[in-house]
Amino acid sequence: MVKATYQISVPGFLANGISAGIKGGEEKDLGLIYSTVPARAAAMFTKNTFKAAPVLIDAERIKRGTAQAILTNSGCANAATGKEGMTDALAVSSSAAKQLKIPEEHLLVCSTGVIGRRLPVKKIESGIGKLIKGLNESGIEDAEAAMMTTDKFPKIAIRKGIVGAKDITICGIAKGAGMIEPNMATLLTYVMTDALIDAKALNTVFHQVIDSTFNAISVDGCMSTNDTAIILANGLAGNNPLERAQARLQRFREMLTDVLAELSQAVVKDGEGATKFITVVVDGAKSKSDARRVAYSVANSNLVKTAFFGEDPNWGRIIAAVGASGIPLEKEKVTLSIGQMTVFAQDTPANISAAKLRDIFRTGQIEVRVGLGSGDKSYSVYTSDLSYDYVKINADYST
Amino acid sequence: MVKATYQISVPGFLANGISAGIKGGEEKDLGLIYSTVPARAAAMFTKNTFKAAPVLIDAERIKRGTAQAILTNSGCANAATGKEGMTDALAVSSSAAKQLKIPEEHLLVCSTGVIGRRLPVKKIESGIGKLIKGLNESGIEDAEAAMMTTDKFPKIAIRKGIVGAKDITICGIAKGAGMIEPNMATLLTYVMTDALIDAKALNTVFHQVIDSTFNAISVDGCMSTNDTAIILANGLAGNNPLERAQARLQRFREMLTDVLAELSQAVVKDGEGATKFITVVVDGAKSKSDARRVAYSVANSNLVKTAFFGEDPNWGRIIAAVGASGIPLEKEKVTLSIGQMTVFAQDTPANISAAKLRDIFRTGQIEVRVGLGSGDKSYSVYTSDLSYDYVKINADYST
Repeated sequence: MVKATYQISVPGFLANGISAGIKGGEEKDLGLIYSTVPARAAAMFTKNTFKAAPVLIDAERIKRGTAQAILTNSGCANAATGKEGMTDALAVSSSAAKQLKIPEEHLLVCSTGVIGRRLPVKKIESGIGKLIKGLNESGIEDAEAAMMTTDKFPKIAIRKGIVGAKDITICGIAKGAGMIEPNMATLLTYVMTDALIDAKALNTVFHQVIDSTFNAISVDGCMSTNDTAIILANGLAGNNPLERAQARLQRFREMLTDVLAELSQAVVKDGEGATKFITVVVDGAKSKSDARRVAYSVANSNLVKTAFFGEDPNWGRIIAAVGASGIPLEKEKVTLSIGQMTVFAQDTPANISAAKLRDIFRTGQIEVRVGLGSGDKSYSVYTSDLSYDYVKINADYST
Repeated sequence: MVKATYQISVPGFLANGISAGIKGGEEKDLGLIYSTVPARAAAMFTKNTFKAAPVLIDAERIKRGTAQAILTNSGCANAATGKEGMTDALAVSSSAAKQLKIPEEHLLVCSTGVIGRRLPVKKIESGIGKLIKGLNESGIEDAEAAMMTTDKFPKIAIRKGIVGAKDITICGIAKGAGMIEPNMATLLTYVMTDALIDAKALNTVFHQVIDSTFNAISVDGCMSTNDTAIILANGLAGNNPLERAQARLQRFREMLTDVLAELSQAVVKDGEGATKFITVVVDGAKSKSDARRVAYSVANSNLVKTAFFGEDPNWGRIIAAVGASGIPLEKEKVTLSIGQMTVFAQDTPANISAAKLRDIFRTGQIEVRVGLGSGDKSYSVYTSDLSYDYVKINADYST
């Protein structure tokens, strides 16, 4: 994942991750990202009705457009915990802000883990001192480690480039693995940058880029109570400020897209039990939303996903999923190709070699392309297969 | 499934099932249901855009409201097979109608199995003679056996009762197992009855009863290309004719509901890899469609289904699925109970024993009740869990 040539750090950002015993062992489970100066901030959150307490707090705080730190625990989602959950989250937030000596409303709090359990406030509070004491410029990897749950590998992406006449850095970290679907597509992702950028421009660009990256992936079609994406831009690069409709904002957008595309694809590759990485491209649609519905109908079909897991070239299930999308289709115009091989067109199967198709399934990286033939809009979704391990991981998660 | 006290037969109906070698072995794969006189007929079909050739044929033929026979093959769905698929289905239909000496438009044809493969017309044609020759009054079980694919047990339900001053019989058979979702919820289900009923009344009642039975179950959220439900009513009971808005029509509806409820629940119990039978009841909704959306959001959640498989009392996933349904909810009013145990109310977890909850999960028959507290509409969905065996069965189906 990580470009080995770069050290994982961003000017003006300190980070750390420790074990506070939330998960009951030695694993890191409490992490902190801290900017030495208040940063411009933007965020997107789950649309689930049962938003976790930290999500409700952050959604309120982010409205100011400024934040300086993100405190994260894994091992407990603090979701579906009612007023007590809110009290717990506020207690932790108050404690951390005090010790960091920043206004409480400049601290964002995030939780991930089992839903419906009380936050172990005492454990977190007693870990905060050590966590802050250990903040350091190379601590991003530790902060990432502290937010992992069923993730098998850390997800960190970094880009450097000249924007507005200065070198800037954009570094993102993410945890994912299950409950991966819009909106949002990962439980937690944070972006740190030293770029100097106008608050409105930051908010707009971040929403756009999340929509084309994290909101275009799916592991299991489930939307979590805690999904949160945050960007902090501390401005320390001293570049010419990035504002709306500038060429240099476009350059920033490209770098940010690179970072979030890498992270979101890493989340799919690390999808619970994933053995395949599948790109579903739908084009020729009348509208983007039609293309999107068809793409998700395919990407979320358990029958399609199990066929990919089994390397079973049963492409008829993809056609069935396209037809089940509920979008009006002219079926004579629909085409399906897998890899570069056309398997279905003009309402008729192509004369293909099942063995060759199976070879494509076996590569592990499969592109499914559905043409609708009725317009010029398209949409792409990244997804994984459905394996024994998905069932295994999820059949016994809370205990 | 079968009430042992009744012989499985319906006056005026003959049936049979044989092996025509479509599946490549000795298994039965070609079945026929035949009424000795033309019957009133009604049917419902998949809404998938890529309807299989036999579905397109039957949808046209059923418009007359009369049919006399249903020919079914398993082992090949004849779906996504284009014009050739249509030619194949018509060839088989023509052959069977000729040998049965009935008008071709009185014959319905159904196929189930792998999508995207040509129908083995010659094998079927050479089996038809034997199939017809063996038609008999006790052949319903053989016809059922011939339409099974991954089904582990046959699904036959029968009721007898006095309607319109005469004894009538209603017998239904079904095959299911995978791709179980509205609309329709099973691949194939046929109902035979000797009741005398007006064509319009039959059509209305059948649609209503299917909506409350087969369209209220889900195994994996996938809609097939071949789903077909057919009822044939040959009138031989000689009862006072059943027409709209009559008390005796209501009695018929109840019996039909009994038969189709038993069959649809059997389909869920035999869901691919199912180890649990889960009833999701949503009440207190503003509209039936709201209740339905919430019920399916829970019933189709892979995270919920794997938790049930693992007997893991992770009820937070159910709350997350409720919140992800997209329906506006007053979260303070939402309640969740499992078995008879309230686990969540007033946005707060109840103080429950995880061990007791796990015991409920272990019973194998679990009722999940979600109260929305904002109206008086409700909806129930029957579903199964998601197990290793679901993945196993579906990872290697076509080969």
